[in-house]
Amino acid sequence: MSSFDFDKVIRKVPDFPKKGILFYDITSLIADPPAMRAVKEEMVRRYQGRGITKIVAVESRGFLFGTLLADALSLPLVLARKKGKLPNPTFSRSYALEYGQDTLEIQKVDLAAGDQVLLLDDLIATGGTLGAVSELIEQEAKAKVVGIFAVIGLPFLNYEKVIGKYNVATLINYHSE
Amino acid sequence: MSSFDFDKVIRKVPDFPKKGILFYDITSLIADPPAMRAVKEEMVRRYQGRGITKIVAVESRGFLFGTLLADALSLPLVLARKKGKLPNPTFSRSYALEYGQDTLEIQKVDLAAGDQVLLLDDLIATGGTLGAVSELIEQEAKAKVVGIFAVIGLPFLNYEKVIGKYNVATLINYHSE
Repeated sequence: MSSFDFDKVIRKVPDFPKKGILFYDITSLIADPPAMRAVKEEMVRRYQGRGITKIVAVESRGFLFGTLLADALSLPLVLARKKGKLPNPTFSRSYALEYGQDTLEIQKVDLAAGDQVLLLDDLIATGGTLGAVSELIEQEAKAKVVGIFAVIGLPFLNYEKVIGKYNVATLINYHSE
Repeated sequence: MSSFDFDKVIRKVPDFPKKGILFYDITSLIADPPAMRAVKEEMVRRYQGRGITKIVAVESRGFLFGTLLADALSLPLVLARKKGKLPNPTFSRSYALEYGQDTLEIQKVDLAAGDQVLLLDDLIATGGTLGAVSELIEQEAKAKVVGIFAVIGLPFLNYEKVIGKYNVATLINYHSE
């Protein structure tokens, strides 16, 4: 593990986006260059030389860490975006939210059968989004999810039940609200 | 200028997001590690040693290039996001779209009076978004916009009229649709 104190640079914001939710805010981390360097070094240490062929980053805070790692490992960066944002034909997957549902898309041109994909986001809560994107990558694009990484994990929201079959890693976990 | 042929890695998608619009697509660029390295080298060459204190990146494709440069120059990265996405108190600015309007926000905690800001996005079209964010940075946060950078410029949409008073740079311009 890194000796960097990630907890120190993650701001905790009560009652966002609504009352009763404690929001783990990474805007304080990305405004701290030594913290970002430590995130990059941890990601490189974990994923360098592992045969990864593509980094898939989830809109939009996942773009920050996806860019950092894709640059460090000289790998192609692929965006998983909300419906209608990507200009080329897509694979698409819907998933349940607390109320209603949402849809994420990846361009067909961006993934090939056999790709070894690392999937990145800033935070893992219920795992619903990352589970849907993983299914898209494996079932639609016929590529393999070799790992899922996020800076922050909230295991008390039981993401293991949804994405536990993948190789999931986080830099820091919070254990209750 | 870079000897890298950026035009070659920017996909042109007709009729997106609607009929008659030619969309300059950077998903092909970010999936190309040598192209991203060339973008990074050009940004570093232009902005290293210029006294910049913060990089402000516009949601969400601006996050990609903002992260790249913030990492390369070891500078704080600040997000300009759509209304309601940022968890802390914000400066906010609305701007006209073709139909209706939109609002961008920057957290007050992320900018200080006197900051020397480089503002980054993927593409400059009418300059409406970047003009609004520049006004926010200078008039609300009392910081200075020392430059605006995007990978792609569309000068035929007359962004000079809106942001011409700032120091605007692009890697490649397209001159008509």
